[in-house]
Amino acid sequence: METTGIREAFHNVRKHTEYICEPLETEDYVPQPVAFVSPPKWHLAHSTWFFETFILKPNVPGYRMYDPDFNYLFNSYYNNVGERSLRTDRGNVTRPTTKAVYAYRQYVDEQMDAFLEDLTDPDILALVELGLHHEQQHQELLVTDIKYILGHNPLFPVYREGQNMVSGRNTETGFLTIPEGIYDIGHQGEGFCFDNELGRHKVYLHEFEIAKGLVTNKEYLAFMEAGGYQDFNLWLDEGWSWVNENHISAPMYWHRIGGEWHYFTLNGLRKVDPDAILSHVSYFEAAAFAQWKGMRLPTEFEWEIAAANLDWGQRWEWTNSAYLPYPGFSKAPGAVGEYNGKFMVNQMVLRGASVATSPGHARKTYRNFFHTHERWQYTGIRLAQ
Amino acid sequence: METTGIREAFHNVRKHTEYICEPLETEDYVPQPVAFVSPPKWHLAHSTWFFETFILKPNVPGYRMYDPDFNYLFNSYYNNVGERSLRTDRGNVTRPTTKAVYAYRQYVDEQMDAFLEDLTDPDILALVELGLHHEQQHQELLVTDIKYILGHNPLFPVYREGQNMVSGRNTETGFLTIPEGIYDIGHQGEGFCFDNELGRHKVYLHEFEIAKGLVTNKEYLAFMEAGGYQDFNLWLDEGWSWVNENHISAPMYWHRIGGEWHYFTLNGLRKVDPDAILSHVSYFEAAAFAQWKGMRLPTEFEWEIAAANLDWGQRWEWTNSAYLPYPGFSKAPGAVGEYNGKFMVNQMVLRGASVATSPGHARKTYRNFFHTHERWQYTGIRLAQ
Amino acid sequence: METTGIREAFHNVRKHTEYICEPLETEDYVPQPVAFVSPPKWHLAHSTWFFETFILKPNVPGYRMYDPDFNYLFNSYYNNVGERSLRTDRGNVTRPTTKAVYAYRQYVDEQMDAFLEDLTDPDILALVELGLHHEQQHQELLVTDIKYILGHNPLFPVYREGQNMVSGRNTETGFLTIPEGIYDIGHQGEGFCFDNELGRHKVYLHEFEIAKGLVTNKEYLAFMEAGGYQDFNLWLDEGWSWVNENHISAPMYWHRIGGEWHYFTLNGLRKVDPDAILSHVSYFEAAAFAQWKGMRLPTEFEWEIAAANLDWGQRWEWTNSAYLPYPGFSKAPGAVGEYNGKFMVNQMVLRGASVATSPGHARKTYRNFFHTHERWQYTGIRLAQ
Amino acid sequence: METTGIREAFHNVRKHTEYICEPLETEDYVPQPVAFVSPPKWHLAHSTWFFETFILKPNVPGYRMYDPDFNYLFNSYYNNVGERSLRTDRGNVTRPTTKAVYAYRQYVDEQMDAFLEDLTDPDILALVELGLHHEQQHQELLVTDIKYILGHNPLFPVYREGQNMVSGRNTETGFLTIPEGIYDIGHQGEGFCFDNELGRHKVYLHEFEIAKGLVTNKEYLAFMEAGGYQDFNLWLDEGWSWVNENHISAPMYWHRIGGEWHYFTLNGLRKVDPDAILSHVSYFEAAAFAQWKGMRLPTEFEWEIAAANLDWGQRWEWTNSAYLPYPGFSKAPGAVGEYNGKFMVNQMVLRGASVATSPGHARKTYRNFFHTHERWQYTGIRLAQ
Repeated sequence: METTGIREAFHNVRKHTEYICEPLETEDYVPQPVAFVSPPKWHLAHSTWFFETFILKPNVPGYRMYDPDFNYLFNSYYNNVGERSLRTDRGNVTRPTTKAVYAYRQYVDEQMDAFLEDLTDPDILALVELGLHHEQQHQELLVTDIKYILGHNPLFPVYREGQNMVSGRNTETGFLTIPEGIYDIGHQGEGFCFDNELGRHKVYLHEFEIAKGLVTNKEYLAFMEAGGYQDFNLWLDEGWSWVNENHISAPMYWHRIGGEWHYFTLNGLRKVDPDAILSHVSYFEAAAFAQWKGMRLPTEFEWEIAAANLDWGQRWEWTNSAYLPYPGFSKAPGAVGEYNGKFMVNQMVLRGASVATSPGHARKTYRNFFHTHERWQYTGIRLAQ
Repeated sequence: METTGIREAFHNVRKHTEYICEPLETEDYVPQPVAFVSPPKWHLAHSTWFFETFILKPNVPGYRMYDPDFNYLFNSYYNNVGERSLRTDRGNVTRPTTKAVYAYRQYVDEQMDAFLEDLTDPDILALVELGLHHEQQHQELLVTDIKYILGHNPLFPVYREGQNMVSGRNTETGFLTIPEGIYDIGHQGEGFCFDNELGRHKVYLHEFEIAKGLVTNKEYLAFMEAGGYQDFNLWLDEGWSWVNENHISAPMYWHRIGGEWHYFTLNGLRKVDPDAILSHVSYFEAAAFAQWKGMRLPTEFEWEIAAANLDWGQRWEWTNSAYLPYPGFSKAPGAVGEYNGKFMVNQMVLRGASVATSPGHARKTYRNFFHTHERWQYTGIRLAQ
Repeated sequence: METTGIREAFHNVRKHTEYICEPLETEDYVPQPVAFVSPPKWHLAHSTWFFETFILKPNVPGYRMYDPDFNYLFNSYYNNVGERSLRTDRGNVTRPTTKAVYAYRQYVDEQMDAFLEDLTDPDILALVELGLHHEQQHQELLVTDIKYILGHNPLFPVYREGQNMVSGRNTETGFLTIPEGIYDIGHQGEGFCFDNELGRHKVYLHEFEIAKGLVTNKEYLAFMEAGGYQDFNLWLDEGWSWVNENHISAPMYWHRIGGEWHYFTLNGLRKVDPDAILSHVSYFEAAAFAQWKGMRLPTEFEWEIAAANLDWGQRWEWTNSAYLPYPGFSKAPGAVGEYNGKFMVNQMVLRGASVATSPGHARKTYRNFFHTHERWQYTGIRLAQ
Repeated sequence: METTGIREAFHNVRKHTEYICEPLETEDYVPQPVAFVSPPKWHLAHSTWFFETFILKPNVPGYRMYDPDFNYLFNSYYNNVGERSLRTDRGNVTRPTTKAVYAYRQYVDEQMDAFLEDLTDPDILALVELGLHHEQQHQELLVTDIKYILGHNPLFPVYREGQNMVSGRNTETGFLTIPEGIYDIGHQGEGFCFDNELGRHKVYLHEFEIAKGLVTNKEYLAFMEAGGYQDFNLWLDEGWSWVNENHISAPMYWHRIGGEWHYFTLNGLRKVDPDAILSHVSYFEAAAFAQWKGMRLPTEFEWEIAAANLDWGQRWEWTNSAYLPYPGFSKAPGAVGEYNGKFMVNQMVLRGASVATSPGHARKTYRNFFHTHERWQYTGIRLAQ
């Protein structure tokens, strides 16, 4: 990426984060209703902390940190970069204020802008690019965390008029057949990718069919009406415990009101649109639905090979692959090496991208991952057999 | 209370609540870091809800509620007044905003002001007075909850310059002797009191001595340095579990920094003042300290009789009396009856008042109560023998 | 107590413990289904450990401990006597076997028998007597813990044919009136008592009426049928949480089978006898029932004064007094001082005795105590007003 | 399998279960110290229940169940076969006694013996064979559960003299190289296998090296001494939480006594043998150790291909493969279909067999699986690169 390119990219990505937060009230920036949701204020600060800590501090001679306390407050999981505050306490930290966090962003943006002007070192450029992709990941989390905060408020406030984000429909139906054979998997070429996509390697795939469209609300309602949430034969054992311990009987954000299914959208409470693509299901629900249909979820390898001929991008699609290292994967040394590798256990891979994914962030080889019970992302189901 | 009096009293109490919140940033109004701390925004709204629900709604013909959702959101524990939201979820409710809550207060204040102009019904007047004392209780909680929120922020922000609230000293030392005999206990006369103070009755007291001053930081430091937190012989069994499970080794807000004890005050982090009166100890700590001194805590009856000759009022003083009904106590019918009686189990009585108690709220017969492990109030120790 | 007397008393008490265990299968000696229930094997060993630790070891020159590991395994809560194993782990300790524990009993019994022959030291005699009363307390716990273990087995096994222990009836009805006045409370005279009964002192009682009989199953069924478990107005706040979190809708051991109420007794599952005295209710239930009747529970002082004219002894009767020290109470020094004082917080006093109390163990001044939710003892309700 | 063969196999497997239990005291049959450990009594009954429920009841006309309550008590996880008791309550069920369970075994054994005499139906024969392999799985659990029960007893009792089970050594060292290529994975041929091994299919493997021996105690001690348990860079994020929340600093059963490492073996407490093969480590520990060595764990596919040239069988070997279905896997209909498929999430595959695996139970294609923190099995580490 050239210098001009990186400055503009930096500017655009940083502005987009602030655009996402535009409709928020000051109070909305504060809470952390559950451990996996972070306060919007924290996202704003943490993505800034990345640039200050990994770019400015080591590379700008005499760089003056905006506030040394921020390292402690806005570090997320980088054990290599000093103490960090408990993840579950983020919602109680009222100071620095939102305003102060915006000032922090502005300070770092100005320093970065000056620094990027003459930057040619390819390693640092790569690290800046990583920081931008990191911020884009937090942009998607911002959208889903804001949805969580507003969607659990008894008043169901509207985030932004005219944009409910869950009304998208499939453009194709039927199944695609992929023949048996050896295929290449993993990132290739010049563009950016995360370390977990590297190590292009061969896999052997048996012939399979993969659906051209994602499961719709109507199809999922049929599963619900057929007693899907009550039939343990359809569920993984841990899924069945999850259903019962949490009294799950519908996708996240769904509410039965006056005999009809509604869901909370970023545009407020709406009737469920039967033809729209299903969203906010866990891996457990995706697997049970597939079992009910007599099908299965695709593996991440099947997905990656089929993707060239699929219309993908409205939901993160649960695959039946556990999140594990590719052959030859190795962690980068130091703090940046904590980015992906240490999460490679007890999570499932999601492929594709969602309506909340930032522009330019998606890739066919992208490996997203979440725990099997998580469903506050825009997650959906594609069937295979 | 006369009509003019009640209007002015109403005005003064309501303004004082807002004075307490004056130094807050918008973010400070939001969080609920632990279940027993409520967001300042919630206190502002809940004390207003009391007047709307118990005064305006039943007595003003055609009264239009400010927002019907607020009954659900700002009810605290009155099971008789419709559904209520979970106490532990208060910190996640970002809407209505703080600004909207202030507008709610203004609306109710205006309605109340008009209503009070002609009010002569003694029952309603009594209920308004109850509402004002209720709001004063929340004023003290506001101070202690704000202290909790700021005091658990790693930046230790100052609440208000020049007022640390814990620098008070004793004016007297030595012990007062009270002779054996029959004494009258409970509220007497015309002034306001809560239902739990009623039912004046006789108790028999044996001769006892009670300290004229409260335990100071210096005295408590001697206990700490003598290994008080490590010697199970000094502790109640549940207290010893509490110490070990929570790794307690000092009063709340105390921090060991560079070999010296500091504490968080509303004026920021300060060195512990050895001559100031100790604050923020639990009943468990009070009882262990008394055991170490070879003394005991007074009962609430001893305290009430001695109070006429004591200088009291800087700390809520733990007594050795459990919070139980006086002979002849009976709950008022309806929601107001939920005020006190239902908490009469597994809590200890505190007597006196603290530096955070609102002006005009203290009484010699006042029965405050908290659980034995709680210590975020301005609690202290007076010894007896 | 004379030497002959104490040898015979020792023999009798020790034999009675073993009589209680006679109907058990080896397996029944092992489990600890909840923290407050101890394995019968543990009771057998712990009551023996008391004599070995406090009598034989310090007083018999050259005494050889049966097994030094037993001090660690069978100490209950005496922090002063070395390390102790976790209370909640007792059910996993399969060795020493039951047989080995009986051998331990026999060894200590023989040693004690020899030691008691010449014992005249009044302090040691007093400690032996304490040990016997301690063992009698564990005898009652043995009965109730065995009931818990068998009563939570899906097969509802019979403990002993012909003895269900809950069929007792009241012999009197109506109320007794006690006049206002100063009364003396606490143990008096030569006989044995625990330290918590000492410090005879005066209390002032206002006139009250106390029921001559205890609440029956029929009366309690009326409360249940009137929706008592569903009406929060009747409950203490913590009681209401307890009811809802634990889905309580009847006394312990009650089961609704085929439209009729049954209860588990030591004689197996039986239909609830409407005329028998109610058992196995918590303080929360006792207080709610009294509230529903428009009455209250007596205080422990009222109970003690009225007891001379009451027929008591079938159930431990919940009082409305918290378990707190009498004026002038002080802990004995050393391990024996841990007996009572350290539990004087967050528990309520029960007076009387129950069908499971060992012969000769009951006293009018006896202060039993349990937490407000506990109900696996034979607990009942006596009303006052 | 022929009829004669099956009768003898049935006899042998059933006897072996009882041989394992021979050294137990009656008390040892009872407890369930943690949820994943079952009481030996339960294993004895549950493996018997399998034959009664799936073989005798549906196939023997007029079959009289030994005790209908046993279906409820000894069902493990088969939701399709009626209600089942809570897994975590098994340790509190003292009745039926151990003796009664042995009588149940004898009754079913006699019935089975008669039934097997004329049995030729291949489907039923297959189910009997499944039952025997099921019982062999419980035999290994019996050994490890007994070790857990005795190993957590403060007295460290010996299970069986002369057999510590952890003294085995490697017979080979160095690495084996496997060339890149397409390989066949999964069960082949006539012999028994579980459904999760079926669906023989092709995988593409890149060239890899795999250790001929397993990691020894000495090698693991070097990791411990190098601070392996303190360096978060070596650990998966969930592993690091596990280490810290559970204060893990050594393999299970290891104790530091007098400055030297000991471990509990079935032969009592012993000094750690440095040259013996490491046992009782979790996946988290295996992965951290491999990271420290700069290597990795093999995948289950690599292991299966290499196995022909490896000496395996002393430890279950953690692989870096998540437990997921093979292509074409489908659950059998009905209760037997609950055997494997529903556990295919959030567990890792272990390959090989251990010193506790029953004779004749091991297979190169066998897929064992446990959660990433579990380590009470005889688990070990084989490295790859």
